[in-house]
Order: sequence, then structure tokens, then C-alpha cells
Amino acid sequence: MKMEIKIMKNILAANQNKAEEIKKLLSQKKILMINLIGAPGAGKTTLLEQTILRLKDRFRMAVIEGDIATDIDARRLQPLGIPIVQINTDGACHLESTTILKAFDEFNLADLDLVFVENVGNLVCPAEFDIGEYAKIAISSVTEGEDKPLKYPLLFREAKALLLSKTDLMPYTDFDKTGFYKNVKNINAELPVFEISCKKNIGMELWINWLTQITARIKK
Amino acid sequence: MKMEIKIMKNILAANQNKAEEIKKLLSQKKILMINLIGAPGAGKTTLLEQTILRLKDRFRMAVIEGDIATDIDARRLQPLGIPIVQINTDGACHLESTTILKAFDEFNLADLDLVFVENVGNLVCPAEFDIGEYAKIAISSVTEGEDKPLKYPLLFREAKALLLSKTDLMPYTDFDKTGFYKNVKNINAELPVFEISCKKNIGMELWINWLTQITARIKK
Repeated sequence: MKMEIKIMKNILAANQNKAEEIKKLLSQKKILMINLIGAPGAGKTTLLEQTILRLKDRFRMAVIEGDIATDIDARRLQPLGIPIVQINTDGACHLESTTILKAFDEFNLADLDLVFVENVGNLVCPAEFDIGEYAKIAISSVTEGEDKPLKYPLLFREAKALLLSKTDLMPYTDFDKTGFYKNVKNINAELPVFEISCKKNIGMELWINWLTQITARIKK
Repeated sequence: MKMEIKIMKNILAANQNKAEEIKKLLSQKKILMINLIGAPGAGKTTLLEQTILRLKDRFRMAVIEGDIATDIDARRLQPLGIPIVQINTDGACHLESTTILKAFDEFNLADLDLVFVENVGNLVCPAEFDIGEYAKIAISSVTEGEDKPLKYPLLFREAKALLLSKTDLMPYTDFDKTGFYKNVKNINAELPVFEISCKKNIGMELWINWLTQITARIKK
């Protein structure tokens, strides 16, 4: 099944916070919404691709793709055959709740269990905004270095899980894993960390289990 | 020589654009100011370290480090023995001209040829602000993928040079170099690109030559 991609513009309206409305709607429909946040190139789209592939027999899913420009990411996910809305922010550095609510018009919410939002590639601004998600999920690649939790503390504080991505590149970098865990603990001692390599198919089960459990709990 | 690091707070004052004042000052003092912009973990600090090492017999340099939190980067550069000001933005996603002008108070401008500003790790917001720099320099690592120029067009349009960093990791990624150059050309056909690996000491001469030439031109 090849789905058409709907492309929308971001609506920046700081005074119109629709997060509570979204939360209520998701709660009524028993849908889990994940807000995936990471730097450009951290591996957000690959993670979504590999996650959706693993969950598609179990849950009904949809994706909201946030990018400043292009529909590259939406087109990458199109072969998965699930509903996708691509939001182009035209320069804005994050997604806002008003746009998310608008994107819902493109979905049949009664047919969904799990909505993934891939935010604009940015470790800073998206962490500041409540878009009505159940959880912000942080993704940081080993090539970014072990100091990111200290240098961009808000996201690591707000996140309900952290994916350490591209672990297959670890041998070729100076990444200090002990230091990384120390830095994570310093900012958010309770944060679960999943080490993954989507490329080499390493560590995905624990993440998938975690996500399956919380989605299934919402459905009950 | 070990220099003391001065830590400052960012002053966000959108209505007080000091960029023109800074440009005038730099022009009077014949100082070249570079505004280095890239995603978290693109290799900005390592590039500065390796660049300053190579130029320290030729030019008198200083660094303004921008980070949301911590003085990790300033401390990394401290052994170079040049004046460093660390700005902590406390959450703000970019540096502004008012803060840059304030940071100048910590330098003796008469003793400088070249000032490097390492902006907050962010491919989006810093590109929007004129801080009075001579040039914005973009840095993007091969691990971020070849689509970044299309997805974050403003920086690649504004930059006077682009560093493609971490080329030593190319064999371990799916980075499409032909596609990357096509994407760069699409956004900014005139943009000079330097492929570098600071870790493996590859490709640094061309970048250093380029920087030396424009700095020497300013000094004339």
C-alpha cells in the first residue's frame, strides 16, 4: 500500500497552545504519541523506519514529519504504507501544538494506536515545546560525543527515554561511554538509555519492548 | 601560557542589533571574525583547536565560545594559550550581537588578527542572526548524511565556506558524496567545500590556506 504524503506548513502561534486539547483527544482515542527529538543526522528517520517495520503487525501507526524544508523524510517512510503528514516549517526551528492538531485532520484517529512525531533536527528548541505528546524521546549518536547531555540539558531532562544511536561507529570514534552515562545520570538519573545501531540491527529489541509496553498500556 | 576563561551570560535583545557597530569596530582594528555554525557534535571545537594550532605562529587569535550550558569547550581550548570568553546562553539557541560586543570588552582588540565565534550547536537558528561577523562558516559531518544542505538551506546559503568534517568515518557510513555535492550546488553553487578529518589530519591545508588568505587580506 502506497500512501499519499500530505505536505503542510507549520503554524507558529505561541499564544495558542493546543497541547491540552491534543492530550485529551489522544486519551479519548487511546493513542500514544511520541515526540522524537535529536540533532540533525542523529538517525531519527532511520529509527522510525526500523521501529515501524518491527511494530506494524502489532499496532496501527502514523507519522508526522517535521522539517524546515523538503519531504525527503516522508518519502523515505512512504514504502511502509502508513499515513504520513509532512510539515515544512519554512525556517522555524521546532513544531508547535497548533500544527500537530491540524495534522490530525489528515488521519483517521479511530484507526490509530501510535503516532510518531519526528521533530525538526535540533537539540535545543523542540525540547521547550509541549505538543501534547505522551513522551519526548531523545536520540543522540555516538559521533556527537559524550558531552551532549551536559551541553543541551533540557532535552535530556524532559525525555522519557534516550536512544544512543550509531553504536556501530563506536570503535572509530573517541566516544567515552562511561563519561556519557555519567553525564546522563548527572542530568536525569532515571532516564532509560537504549544503545542501538539501526544499520547493524543491534539493541533494537529493548527499545521495541519498552515502546510496546507503554503503547499496550495505553490501549487497555 | 594558561589564560583564565571568562564566563558570560547571553544577552537576548532582538531590538538592539549591534552587528553594524561590531563590523565597524572590526574593520577599524583590521580583525577578521568568523562565525562557526554546525549541528551538535559536528566537530566545531576540534576544528578550532586544530585551526588555531596551525595558525598560532602567524596570527593573534581569540575565541568566543557559545554554549547553552557548561564551559567544556572553553576548557578544551584553554591549553592553546589564547584569550577565550565562554558565553552560556541558559537555554537560548543562538548567540546575538549584543553579547558578542560585550565579550569584546574581555579582549584587547589591538592585539588581535582573528576572532573565532563558536556558535551554539544548532543548524537552524544561528544562521538567522548577523553578529557582525566577516563570514559564517558551516560545518557538517559525514555522519549527518548528505541531505543536510536541502533540509537546512539557510545556513548553506549564508555560509562563505563549508567544512565537510569527519571524512575518516566515510567508509563506515552510507554517506553519498556525489549526492552531497549535488545538494550543496542546488542551494549555493558558489560555496567552497573543504573535506576534512581533524582526527586523521586530512584536508586541513586547503582550509588553512583559505583562512590565511582572507585574514591576510584584511590586515593589509
